[in-house]
Amino acid sequence: MKEILVKLKDRSYKIAVDQNSLNSIGSVVKKLKIGDTAIIITSKNIKTLYGNSVQKSLLKTGIETRFELVSIGEKAKSVSAFTTVINNISTFDVFKKPFIIALGGGTIGDLAGFVASVYKRGIPYLQIPTTLLAQVDSSIGGKVAIDLPSAKNMVGSFYQPKYVLVDVSCLKSLSKNLLIDGLGEVVKYGIIESPFIFENLEKYSTQILNLNTKKLAHIVYECAKIKARIVEKDEFDKKDKRIVLNLGHTIGHAIETAGKYNKYTHGNAVSLGIIAASYISKEMNILSEKNFIRICNVLRNLKLKTKLKNISIFKIIDAYKHDKKFINKVNRLVLPVAIGKVKVVDNVPDKLILQAMHELIS
Amino acid sequence: MKEILVKLKDRSYKIAVDQNSLNSIGSVVKKLKIGDTAIIITSKNIKTLYGNSVQKSLLKTGIETRFELVSIGEKAKSVSAFTTVINNISTFDVFKKPFIIALGGGTIGDLAGFVASVYKRGIPYLQIPTTLLAQVDSSIGGKVAIDLPSAKNMVGSFYQPKYVLVDVSCLKSLSKNLLIDGLGEVVKYGIIESPFIFENLEKYSTQILNLNTKKLAHIVYECAKIKARIVEKDEFDKKDKRIVLNLGHTIGHAIETAGKYNKYTHGNAVSLGIIAASYISKEMNILSEKNFIRICNVLRNLKLKTKLKNISIFKIIDAYKHDKKFINKVNRLVLPVAIGKVKVVDNVPDKLILQAMHELIS
Repeated sequence: MKEILVKLKDRSYKIAVDQNSLNSIGSVVKKLKIGDTAIIITSKNIKTLYGNSVQKSLLKTGIETRFELVSIGEKAKSVSAFTTVINNISTFDVFKKPFIIALGGGTIGDLAGFVASVYKRGIPYLQIPTTLLAQVDSSIGGKVAIDLPSAKNMVGSFYQPKYVLVDVSCLKSLSKNLLIDGLGEVVKYGIIESPFIFENLEKYSTQILNLNTKKLAHIVYECAKIKARIVEKDEFDKKDKRIVLNLGHTIGHAIETAGKYNKYTHGNAVSLGIIAASYISKEMNILSEKNFIRICNVLRNLKLKTKLKNISIFKIIDAYKHDKKFINKVNRLVLPVAIGKVKVVDNVPDKLILQAMHELIS
Repeated sequence: MKEILVKLKDRSYKIAVDQNSLNSIGSVVKKLKIGDTAIIITSKNIKTLYGNSVQKSLLKTGIETRFELVSIGEKAKSVSAFTTVINNISTFDVFKKPFIIALGGGTIGDLAGFVASVYKRGIPYLQIPTTLLAQVDSSIGGKVAIDLPSAKNMVGSFYQPKYVLVDVSCLKSLSKNLLIDGLGEVVKYGIIESPFIFENLEKYSTQILNLNTKKLAHIVYECAKIKARIVEKDEFDKKDKRIVLNLGHTIGHAIETAGKYNKYTHGNAVSLGIIAASYISKEMNILSEKNFIRICNVLRNLKLKTKLKNISIFKIIDAYKHDKKFINKVNRLVLPVAIGKVKVVDNVPDKLILQAMHELIS
């Protein structure tokens, strides 16, 4: 097992990257001493796959369990899903010391973490991410949130988990689409910080798409380490350190919102956002033409979307104006400088952003 | 103007206790540099009384304003009220740096503070408490929350305001009932820490009930100071310091919940809770019979409820079992030891709690 410590004073925690490790959750919880009743927030599908292993391991160490099932996809992060889950928990929760386990992908982690952050003004929670996207990104760092109709992640908290258990064996049951979805974030890590990851993606795209566990385990660990180090530098996203993680996300979120969260998956939206940011960077002479092409190619070879179809640019622009990143009417984008290096640029001309959108549909 | 500094590292803020001071809010906001658009969460009634003064002062210093009107009473703290407010804010909020002003009583402060704590993962907010209860208690300390059907304050955060502007002149427009409501908390401060406040309440109950501003201003300042000092010692309610503020609140909350938040006001519920706790304390030989009688008398003289009517004890017990204070099946009550001193007692026998309830209806 490889462990990464996320150092955040009294909010520090470990990320354990391993294979076939779901059955260790009971002993983890026991060591952490965080409660006696686990509320496992998950979907029906994931419960069928992994619910039993997790529950068995917990019961063995004397932890009671209760499942709260939510929809798959962004629907799990609606205000009404949140209300239902928190009302259920409160109705059931009598004379217990509950904690939450997020068992699933990014949306489940975001919802479960937000529930944990506000229920009784905060109870402990653990992340067991089962998708590539959640394993390399959303389960780490404590950014939790739900969506409003106007935009994604508008209601949330900074609230760190007590532990992140990454079992890469879970990736074997991932659909091709969900695997590809996570690769959007993996490419992001390569561009912002790691030529090593990027070159691996260039060389081994076929093996990765065929779920080569060894290759994936290595990549997941490297990505999680990068995320952990960035979160340590800027837990509350106030020092322009964590913002690099938003590469491809500003325009990506707008694309997701404009598509009502069902036209493009997060990873594909990020892929399109990365291309838009790279295009802008190239046009501003920050990124070389050669690296722009490498970025487009690696995304295409990993079967990520690189062209925008059947979606109105005006809707994207409208959603983009709602982004949380806009402070005092100034836009702010993360732009690639080279493979492994990005910079934050304020006041990117609207014209250039529009041009990038046109590039995506051309 | 009298100022109290609440020292909480980078979350420190001032409480300003003054008269006719609403028109200073503009310059306060300007100095704090917290944003350019004030979302004023208030009720229709309070807007009519004070909305204009606050808005004028803000506009004078170039701050845009927008009112979000909510119901009066606990209804303002429902999940649906929260959802409505946060959706409205998000729909309106394009290209702005918004902050929130809670203008009103305790329920408005709790709702507005919770909205501020989770909107975009936290935006700044100020408290302008207009009721006695909010001025001496709920506006200070950053405990914000909304209610679930199962119990009060089940969903919330610890989130400090950037400033608390206490204008005691606002108390002049307070109904007798709302004044009395706040006196429940004032008696609490007397019992937990200040024989001085308690004796003032004993001597000047008539003047206080007749809204003698000088007497009230002095009392408000003393109470706010006690609250500030306790919050400093235990911001996140984890060190058994802040818990003393719960005197009368464990059973009080249960009474409010059992009465569906409309049979007893918070202050009256706290009054009944204080009597129950004092009765238990007397029966456990912790509090003298004489002080028990003084406590009952001061509450009665201030026109607070001292007897429970038309409410089922079973419903109270049921709500009481849902209280957040119950950790690991252990109950925990704050009990008066003398006037100005309390202690925290775990595992109070259920029988004694039931006996106290019977005392309240006898």
